[in-house]
Amino acid sequence: MSAVEGFCLVNGQWSDVIPARDRGLAYGHGIFETIRLSDGKLLMSELHLERLKRGAERLSIPVDSTIVQSYLEMLLSRCPDHGVVKVICTAGEGARGYRTYPQTPPNFIVHWGPPPDYPNHWVTEGISAMVCEQRLASFPRLAGIKHLNRLEQVLARMEWQDQFQEGLMRDNEGHIIEGTMTNLFCFRDGGWLTPSLKSCGVAGVMRQYLMDKLMPAMNCPVRESQLSLESLSGMEELFVCNSIAGIWPVRHIADVGQWKPGKATKAVSSALSENFACFSA
Amino acid sequence: MSAVEGFCLVNGQWSDVIPARDRGLAYGHGIFETIRLSDGKLLMSELHLERLKRGAERLSIPVDSTIVQSYLEMLLSRCPDHGVVKVICTAGEGARGYRTYPQTPPNFIVHWGPPPDYPNHWVTEGISAMVCEQRLASFPRLAGIKHLNRLEQVLARMEWQDQFQEGLMRDNEGHIIEGTMTNLFCFRDGGWLTPSLKSCGVAGVMRQYLMDKLMPAMNCPVRESQLSLESLSGMEELFVCNSIAGIWPVRHIADVGQWKPGKATKAVSSALSENFACFSA
Repeated sequence: MSAVEGFCLVNGQWSDVIPARDRGLAYGHGIFETIRLSDGKLLMSELHLERLKRGAERLSIPVDSTIVQSYLEMLLSRCPDHGVVKVICTAGEGARGYRTYPQTPPNFIVHWGPPPDYPNHWVTEGISAMVCEQRLASFPRLAGIKHLNRLEQVLARMEWQDQFQEGLMRDNEGHIIEGTMTNLFCFRDGGWLTPSLKSCGVAGVMRQYLMDKLMPAMNCPVRESQLSLESLSGMEELFVCNSIAGIWPVRHIADVGQWKPGKATKAVSSALSENFACFSA
Repeated sequence: MSAVEGFCLVNGQWSDVIPARDRGLAYGHGIFETIRLSDGKLLMSELHLERLKRGAERLSIPVDSTIVQSYLEMLLSRCPDHGVVKVICTAGEGARGYRTYPQTPPNFIVHWGPPPDYPNHWVTEGISAMVCEQRLASFPRLAGIKHLNRLEQVLARMEWQDQFQEGLMRDNEGHIIEGTMTNLFCFRDGGWLTPSLKSCGVAGVMRQYLMDKLMPAMNCPVRESQLSLESLSGMEELFVCNSIAGIWPVRHIADVGQWKPGKATKAVSSALSENFACFSA
């Protein structure tokens, strides 16, 4: 186990390989979480584990959360205090074919990676984004779930190299849904809006934390809404967020508009940093 | 390497594990083929390798077909003479995140499995199918490609246990596209129709062989068409096919209709068996 490669557990054993016949590889039959590790603590770990459990149920994977937690504790007992911890849970080794056998034990991969090295000014001054051509297809049954079928995001990410920091994705009807790796929040007329994820998209843990906990605690109104691309130019402030990077104000979307990091975004960002120091600039 | 587990090569080494950080597992960033092995020969291997190459290009995976062929030869030199050979080609080990780095070498998994044990009467008398609730989402850029994002098929296959032999899948507009693991052909007014795969679906190698080679050689007209669920009940004959099972007449679709294996299907099935003995009943 080399420290350069990171620390990796497969079903509670130190290993960095998985069975070649795993259904996660064969079909993407599994879910994952990426969790920020700061000062030895997994941030928002309850929300991550809840989403993992919810996703596993929708994919008929029998996941025991206490097992996942024990693997996480085993990893944390050895890995560095800061970084990113990824959990993958798959439907296990399958016979040939799409059929799922409920008695098949899942495979759990838990590994550590170094902390992100995003520049500070993305937090303070904001990022530049583009609108991707690649669309998100409607898949209501798995909408919100962080499953392993992510070719839409992979193809969208191929649309730029280093000139942008994020790409926004639309559904087939043209509604803005999310960034390739972030969720979007928009401020207008004193309240926050975030795209509805009823038919596609990933319901990020940071999005959930902001909507269900932080913004209500700040008395900031927030609601889900269908957002057209055109409506973005009329927004007063925009930010994208995820549980690794925190909050990035959006200062530019190519062919759409420009913004300055505003007071509403700064208020949310400051409140987040007060609760989680690693998200301060 | 146990013979019970089958024979498995990873990048040309005897192994049945792959790196836990492979992008095929993380995102389904890869493609696969399942090829019938009969008397030591891989059936329709050129068509399979062509499709693999086409899929790899669409996913920006640099695949050298001669390497795949050398791995296949290495596998065939040791494995039994009959069975199913699966090839998986992934985008290799990635850094965290969706971004693709073109210099990353792909990972190749090539493994043998036993021949299918489908009963003979599925070939002679036909199969019973259902129409799945799970839809196929529109994804024109990857339509036809056998990529590793297969949750739609996995979820569809959960809709029945043993009471049917296949499930037919529709797109979001209600057009019949394919079976979970087969393509569909319908006979009416002296000609064959098969669903168009422009917006979704897998373009099976057996489908391609029948459309481009066998049916033209038999002077059977065949064309792609948009097919509604309702139109199926007006068809004179139906069959499903893939490159492992060959041709299965459809004798029943729940809530749609019943058919008897007809002359047109028998003619195609016999012609196929003449070229490939393993597909005879």
